[in-house]
Amino acid sequence: MSGLFVTFEGIDGAGKTTQVKRQAARLTRLGLDVLTVREPGGTELGEAIREILQNLGNMIDACAETCLYAAARAQLVAEVILPALQARRVLLADRFADSTIAYQGAGRGLPEEQIIELNALVTRRLRPDLTVLIDLPVEEALARARSKARAHDRMEMMDQAFFTRVRECYLRLAALEPARFVVFDGRKTPAELEAEIFQAVQEALERCIGTSGDKARL
Amino acid sequence: MSGLFVTFEGIDGAGKTTQVKRQAARLTRLGLDVLTVREPGGTELGEAIREILQNLGNMIDACAETCLYAAARAQLVAEVILPALQARRVLLADRFADSTIAYQGAGRGLPEEQIIELNALVTRRLRPDLTVLIDLPVEEALARARSKARAHDRMEMMDQAFFTRVRECYLRLAALEPARFVVFDGRKTPAELEAEIFQAVQEALERCIGTSGDKARL
Repeated sequence: MSGLFVTFEGIDGAGKTTQVKRQAARLTRLGLDVLTVREPGGTELGEAIREILQNLGNMIDACAETCLYAAARAQLVAEVILPALQARRVLLADRFADSTIAYQGAGRGLPEEQIIELNALVTRRLRPDLTVLIDLPVEEALARARSKARAHDRMEMMDQAFFTRVRECYLRLAALEPARFVVFDGRKTPAELEAEIFQAVQEALERCIGTSGDKARL
Repeated sequence: MSGLFVTFEGIDGAGKTTQVKRQAARLTRLGLDVLTVREPGGTELGEAIREILQNLGNMIDACAETCLYAAARAQLVAEVILPALQARRVLLADRFADSTIAYQGAGRGLPEEQIIELNALVTRRLRPDLTVLIDLPVEEALARARSKARAHDRMEMMDQAFFTRVRECYLRLAALEPARFVVFDGRKTPAELEAEIFQAVQEALERCIGTSGDKARL
């Protein structure tokens, strides 16, 4: 597998989506062939699943929800991610397998071992080259999310204890895999974060593809 | 958990649906409180998933399909099966977890260990008290299925080698768990099968609930 696979993780409100956009723009300006994905969308199946999650909302059992996200991810891996990496593109994912461990495992209390096996099944054991974890105190993240009036997002209806478990799980995963994770302080300004994250992305590019942004060498 | 949980398994065309109906009618006549379920339906989420499977059909990746069935099963277990068993009902399921091992594992070649973990996640390790396996030679099953003009069913578009793997997997599972599985010869007439299966169901009733059909003792 060539290409570069970077995932962005963190609790809601941490600033992942903003940074995915900024990094994509920056890499594109360097002449790299960049693709961004966001679960559960990105495929026709993923969009159908997103619709189910929105329509049936809180009626959905936690295990069933986990399997729906897993189905969307399996389709995204097969249809988009693996072909993009085979075509040596730079792929930026707004959440990936670690989200399931943090949200459904630690957050909702499903058995972590079974969640890890489910991830292995749907990702075909594909692992990101770099995982950008934007860490933020839970109170600040919740305040940000609320101010954006995204109250319809069911994730944001969970309580502070839920997000504390999710945040702590992310930090534990990062500590377990220091070669893959880089942790950033989400309290910094978007511009500061952009610069810091870009440095980590460039290092990953050099490590994985042997370039820091020269299209000819890709 | 009380109640009685009986699952019906076998390749397409073996006669499961007919026997579920016949056994349900027979048990109801005895005064038992019977409920039948069929995946992926039985819940609002399950129906939405059934629609996705029908609409997107062959575009769906094998892993994603497995997760969709798993999501429907998780919801069915939480919303219907566990409450029914807690209410001491007799539950007859037209396919359950063994179908996933046989069809997605052996049939489609997904890793069996991960499928077993996925089943454990979605069933909360609930196991049937009795699994009725209706075994039938593949050629006969395919001929029956075709004659019923169910050609739109994608499962029936698979080839003979696929169903041979599925059938062999079922027989292997039955051999591994002789206390749970009873294997029946699907070449017998529906009436013969009904009588034989009913005997196994009665034995399970006596073993699990201590009754062979007396409502007072349930």
